[in-house]
Amino acid sequence: MKNRKKVEVCHTPSLYHQYEKENQIVVAIDVLRATSAMCAAFEHGVEKIIPVSTLEEAKEYKEKGYIVAAERKGQIVEGFTLGNSPFGFMSGEYKGKTIVITTTNGTRAINMAKNADTVVIGSFLNLDALSEWLIKQHKDVLLLASGWKDRFCLEDTICAGAFVDSLIKSAKFTCDEDSSIAAKYLYLSAKDNYMAFLKASSHRRRLKALNLNEDIKYCLTPNQTDVIPILKGDALVLDNGE
Amino acid sequence: MKNRKKVEVCHTPSLYHQYEKENQIVVAIDVLRATSAMCAAFEHGVEKIIPVSTLEEAKEYKEKGYIVAAERKGQIVEGFTLGNSPFGFMSGEYKGKTIVITTTNGTRAINMAKNADTVVIGSFLNLDALSEWLIKQHKDVLLLASGWKDRFCLEDTICAGAFVDSLIKSAKFTCDEDSSIAAKYLYLSAKDNYMAFLKASSHRRRLKALNLNEDIKYCLTPNQTDVIPILKGDALVLDNGE
Repeated sequence: MKNRKKVEVCHTPSLYHQYEKENQIVVAIDVLRATSAMCAAFEHGVEKIIPVSTLEEAKEYKEKGYIVAAERKGQIVEGFTLGNSPFGFMSGEYKGKTIVITTTNGTRAINMAKNADTVVIGSFLNLDALSEWLIKQHKDVLLLASGWKDRFCLEDTICAGAFVDSLIKSAKFTCDEDSSIAAKYLYLSAKDNYMAFLKASSHRRRLKALNLNEDIKYCLTPNQTDVIPILKGDALVLDNGE
Repeated sequence: MKNRKKVEVCHTPSLYHQYEKENQIVVAIDVLRATSAMCAAFEHGVEKIIPVSTLEEAKEYKEKGYIVAAERKGQIVEGFTLGNSPFGFMSGEYKGKTIVITTTNGTRAINMAKNADTVVIGSFLNLDALSEWLIKQHKDVLLLASGWKDRFCLEDTICAGAFVDSLIKSAKFTCDEDSSIAAKYLYLSAKDNYMAFLKASSHRRRLKALNLNEDIKYCLTPNQTDVIPILKGDALVLDNGE
């Protein structure tokens, strides 16, 4: 067990202060849909993503001529052309571009963690690729579930549990903390049928009511990309191995 | 689904502010071991339990001549004769008596909730009896897991999930909130073998290191009593149906 790194799960940004520490990698997770959309955007050629917490910041960027995506209550905010649907970033028209994005939960979690040693973006979409990358870093890992308005949310915790499971299996990590054990168990209960498992979850009901079932299916499908979005300064870029 | 009451789970006292509302019953749960010990004490004839948060308050009561139980770090605090082992309250010598108790997590959670409409004490020990009682009250129920020093803890969440499962099965309650759904799933994964499920949990490891395995086994055995400890003013007493 010697020299193994620690993997922990923080179930909601409200509890981040309990897990914050030096020299750890924070994986920000907002399955429905911010971090899934970010993975999809990089997979489709976007060069840089600037996550901002408030609509005010988003508007300022828009006035400066940036392409800006803004979501609140699951919908595109009036005056913006993109929200947080992964499908919005797939046309190829944003290849090589910088996109500014603000969402209800995900971008807040990313900005909350920005003083961490390293912040990367996780989702089911880059599960295996990011797990392999994390194993190579030889650092403690904190999986930060974005939750829903600071409350616990099922799909983010399950995704965090999927990462815990991968990291533990590598035998390079230990997990001895209850919130991580719970996340792993929830993942193991869910993994054979995420859609059914999440049927009762509040977020899935919210998005289903908005006719976003296709988005949900896409976001719950593991390993559709190998991208490792990493925070450098105020922007996410693809990790270039430096 | 009309007229059904809501059951929710708060995973740790740090998040209680998100769940606090008027006119709900709060069930304080500290499986290892405060609320289990309280159930055991009432089952063995104790008349009244005064939960206090700090050792200072506990000492003041002791100076006034009260019987005082005090636990910190899993052990009886020096200068006190009782801790929070359920077995400490079973001799019959405290029949009809008042006991003051302070523990690391459980008594804090109880006192945090004391402005709630009603506060009752839950554990595996009174699972069925308390579930039936809750069903009869026709009020929303919040299961408050005491956690470990404000962090998520597995056994309390599983016990909360056991109550969620019972209440839902009565068809008198709905549960549409993710932390409650998670608690229920964790309970369903754990229920066939709590000891094995909790093997890796931090609290079980802590108590095992203190040779408290018998306490753990007792606290994880459902339905050993029908007591319903309820907070009246500053003290817990048995519910008399008023």
